[in-house]
Amino acid sequence: MELLEQISVVLVEPSHPGNIGAAARAIKTMGLGRLSLVNPRHFPSQEANQRSAGAEDVLQASRVVNDLPTALAKATLTFGTSVREREVNWPMYTPKQAASEIIKHLLASQENHFCVLFGREHSGLTNEELDQCSAQICIPANPEYSSLNLASAVQIISYELRAAALTEMQQDGLPKTQKARQEAANQTQRQGHLDHLEQVLDELKFARNDNSPLLMRKLTRLYNKADLSVEEIQILRGILTAIQSKLVRSKA
Amino acid sequence: MELLEQISVVLVEPSHPGNIGAAARAIKTMGLGRLSLVNPRHFPSQEANQRSAGAEDVLQASRVVNDLPTALAKATLTFGTSVREREVNWPMYTPKQAASEIIKHLLASQENHFCVLFGREHSGLTNEELDQCSAQICIPANPEYSSLNLASAVQIISYELRAAALTEMQQDGLPKTQKARQEAANQTQRQGHLDHLEQVLDELKFARNDNSPLLMRKLTRLYNKADLSVEEIQILRGILTAIQSKLVRSKA
Repeated sequence: MELLEQISVVLVEPSHPGNIGAAARAIKTMGLGRLSLVNPRHFPSQEANQRSAGAEDVLQASRVVNDLPTALAKATLTFGTSVREREVNWPMYTPKQAASEIIKHLLASQENHFCVLFGREHSGLTNEELDQCSAQICIPANPEYSSLNLASAVQIISYELRAAALTEMQQDGLPKTQKARQEAANQTQRQGHLDHLEQVLDELKFARNDNSPLLMRKLTRLYNKADLSVEEIQILRGILTAIQSKLVRSKA
Repeated sequence: MELLEQISVVLVEPSHPGNIGAAARAIKTMGLGRLSLVNPRHFPSQEANQRSAGAEDVLQASRVVNDLPTALAKATLTFGTSVREREVNWPMYTPKQAASEIIKHLLASQENHFCVLFGREHSGLTNEELDQCSAQICIPANPEYSSLNLASAVQIISYELRAAALTEMQQDGLPKTQKARQEAANQTQRQGHLDHLEQVLDELKFARNDNSPLLMRKLTRLYNKADLSVEEIQILRGILTAIQSKLVRSKA
C-alpha cells in the first residue's frame, strides 16, 4: 500500500545495531519502508544487517542525519512514542487512535508526510524532542515492567498503521480467497441437518423422555455455534445416513 | 491484570534461544506471564536470559514439554497464529478480533484457560497442530515480505490482548460475570470426544478410504469451531455410545 510508504520511522540515537536491524524488519513486514536514524551509535553494521533478516534494502535506503530537525524537515505531522507518562501534558493517543489519525492525515493529501519518533533504548525521547511532536503515542504496558524493546515498539506501531490502512480501505487483512472457499450453509440446510439428527436420535430411542425438547435445543445451539458450511453439513448427514443404514439392517 | 495471567503463550519448537528470551520480554511488558515451550532446541540458555532483559522470571517459570497435547491439556480454548494462508479452512481472526474473543472467554469463567500457539521460526505451525486450535489468528503482513520475527508476533498478540483487556475493563467497569457461560471443555475432553467419534465411524465402516485422515481433520475443525462445553461433550458422547450399543446388538 503506497499510503504506508509515506510514513517515516525515525529512531533517535539508537545504541544497539541489532535493534536498528530488527526495526527495519518490523517496518518492512508491515509494508512501511522509510527509516531515518538520528545519530546512531553504530551504523552501518554487520549486526544490523543480520537482524534485519532480508530487510537490508530498508537499511540501505535509510537516511542517517545528525539532528532531529533535519530528520523532521519534510514532515507535515509528527508523533512521538512513549511507554511512560510525562509531566508535560502532550495530547496522548493509544497506538490504535494514533494510527487512525495518521492514516486520515495521509489520505487527506498526497503531499502529506508523516514521521513517528522512537527514543533511545534506555531513556526514550527528551521533553525537547517531544516538543517537536504534535502528539504522543503511549503504548500501554505493564506498569511493573514496561521495558519494551525498541524494535518491538516499532513493530506494534507499524502493525497498527497497517491495520488502520486496511480498515480505511475496508479490508480486514484476512486472505479473501480462503474466506470465500467454504460456502456457509443457509437456514434450510441447517434445519435439514437438525431434522435428520432428530430422526436418528428417535430411531436410536435416545432421550425418549421429557428432556427431549431441551436436548434438541441444546444440539441446535451446539451446531449453530459451529457456523457450519455446506460441505460440513454433507459430512454430518452422510454419517447420519450411515448410522440409519446399520440400524435398518439390525431390524431386518 | 489477573485476567491476562490466565493466558499461556505456547512456542512450538523454537530454534533460536534469543527468540525465546525476546518472547518472554514481550509477554511480560504486556502483563502476561505464562510461557510454555514445546521441544525447544536450546533451553535454558544464556542467550535467552540476555534477550529477556529482566524477564528471567518468565523464563524460569516456563513449562517445557515434549509434545503439543501436553502443553494444551488444560486449555479451554486454543488459537494458532499464522501470517500465511492455509489450504484447510480454519476460522480466521485478525489479532484484534481474536483478542476480543479471548478476553470474553476468560471473563466468562475463572476456570477458563486460554492458549495461543506460535509456530517454528521458518515453517510456522503444521496443519496437524492447527487442528488442535479452535481458530487461527492471521497477523496482517506485507504480502511481499511477511517474515515476521517470532518474538514480534508474540509482541503484537500480547499487545492486542492487553488492549482488549483494558477496553473490556473500561467499557462497563465490571467483568460480565452475569453472562454465566457454560463451563468450557478442555483439550483432553475435546480429544476424548473426537477419538470416540472416530471409533464409531470406524465401526460404521464410514469413509474407509484414502479420504479418512482428511475427514477427521474436517470433523475436528467443525467441532472446535463450536467451542464445546463440558455438557455438550457429554451429550455428543452419549449419542455415540447409544449408536455403539445398537451396532453391538446388530452384530449379536
